[in-house]
Amino acid sequence: MRNDFMITIALAKGALLKDSVGRFLSAGLDFSAVLDPDNRQLMVPSTCGRARALLVRNGDVPVYVAYGQAQLGVVGYDVLKEHQMPVAQLLDLGFGGCKMAVAVKASSGYKRASDLPPHCRVASKFTYCAREFFDALDLPVELVHLTGSVELGPITGIAEAIVDLVATGRTLRENGLVAIEEIFNTTARLVGHPLSLRLDRGELHSIVEAMRANKPLSNPSV
Amino acid sequence: MRNDFMITIALAKGALLKDSVGRFLSAGLDFSAVLDPDNRQLMVPSTCGRARALLVRNGDVPVYVAYGQAQLGVVGYDVLKEHQMPVAQLLDLGFGGCKMAVAVKASSGYKRASDLPPHCRVASKFTYCAREFFDALDLPVELVHLTGSVELGPITGIAEAIVDLVATGRTLRENGLVAIEEIFNTTARLVGHPLSLRLDRGELHSIVEAMRANKPLSNPSV
Repeated sequence: MRNDFMITIALAKGALLKDSVGRFLSAGLDFSAVLDPDNRQLMVPSTCGRARALLVRNGDVPVYVAYGQAQLGVVGYDVLKEHQMPVAQLLDLGFGGCKMAVAVKASSGYKRASDLPPHCRVASKFTYCAREFFDALDLPVELVHLTGSVELGPITGIAEAIVDLVATGRTLRENGLVAIEEIFNTTARLVGHPLSLRLDRGELHSIVEAMRANKPLSNPSV
Repeated sequence: MRNDFMITIALAKGALLKDSVGRFLSAGLDFSAVLDPDNRQLMVPSTCGRARALLVRNGDVPVYVAYGQAQLGVVGYDVLKEHQMPVAQLLDLGFGGCKMAVAVKASSGYKRASDLPPHCRVASKFTYCAREFFDALDLPVELVHLTGSVELGPITGIAEAIVDLVATGRTLRENGLVAIEEIFNTTARLVGHPLSLRLDRGELHSIVEAMRANKPLSNPSV
């Protein structure tokens, strides 16, 4: 193993971080320093010093991995699907499960997406996913791209429906909304930089395999 | 004045919120409830009950105003320039000042943007602004869109330079970066929905004028 090669792993800040760190720990890479609430560093070495974690926003994980600045990364399938970056999907890590769904006002009477009137407005952070879904349905809609609080869409009247991630459904209920159709399930994925994987001399493969088995590496010094 | 017309004002969460509330307060609209750390509501009526604030993310303010779901909004000039939505710029409110700048590693030796090598990579949240700047400079660059922590760009090597907002310059210094060229200054702007302004029967105009004068409305019941 080359001593001069440091593996960089892009981790999404937020909901997926704790489980991501747990899975890498079980594969022999200890990034638990990133979970310290006082941590201000965005680049954190593993305790063994052979790898480092890059703490970035969800949407930036596929960017760092696609450009090869990180060889591996963990990010939700929803983000992968929305951003369409050229990264290799290696493993479904199983955690961070939620659904991409179409939701409307509970009082609207719409029972499924195909009930929506043609050319109505649909608000979403995930306009690529929404476009693909409504195109497949052959229903022309006007997509309104919002960056947050999409549940405000039907309340303010800027949109008839939304396409958004639903975990417990609490946010929808609190805002008088109801999911009428699921588009896909999403979970956290381990992704890799295609060229780094092809040129890999075993370091990346052993991490991926240890994470697949969800058990420590045979050589925990990596 | 119609009693059935409620003015909706889109306010950006975050750094601009406190000053925005202050300026509307001085114009007779009290939205100080949104500053309560316990507030979870995204739609908050003014104490007089004749207007409501919509608490949204920076980038969504021009969207709500462009669609007329909010008649007025407060947002940074940087966001207006980046998103190019059809809203009317009414007032420069003066607060929230910072600069859009090109920054590089302090150790890079680049003294101005035109020193950057052609076809180098530039990371930014503001790729529209960056594209316009480098096009005017006639310097072809590859833009890498990131959604946060852009200062990581030159450190990780994903980009030679960044285009980002600089307030005090502390984030740059902490990351060994230095601003080499200012692109524009930005401050908070009062924007309006063009059609609502044209159909206005005086309500919006009186708020805009009170904010321009930075003094209470003559009719504080609005």
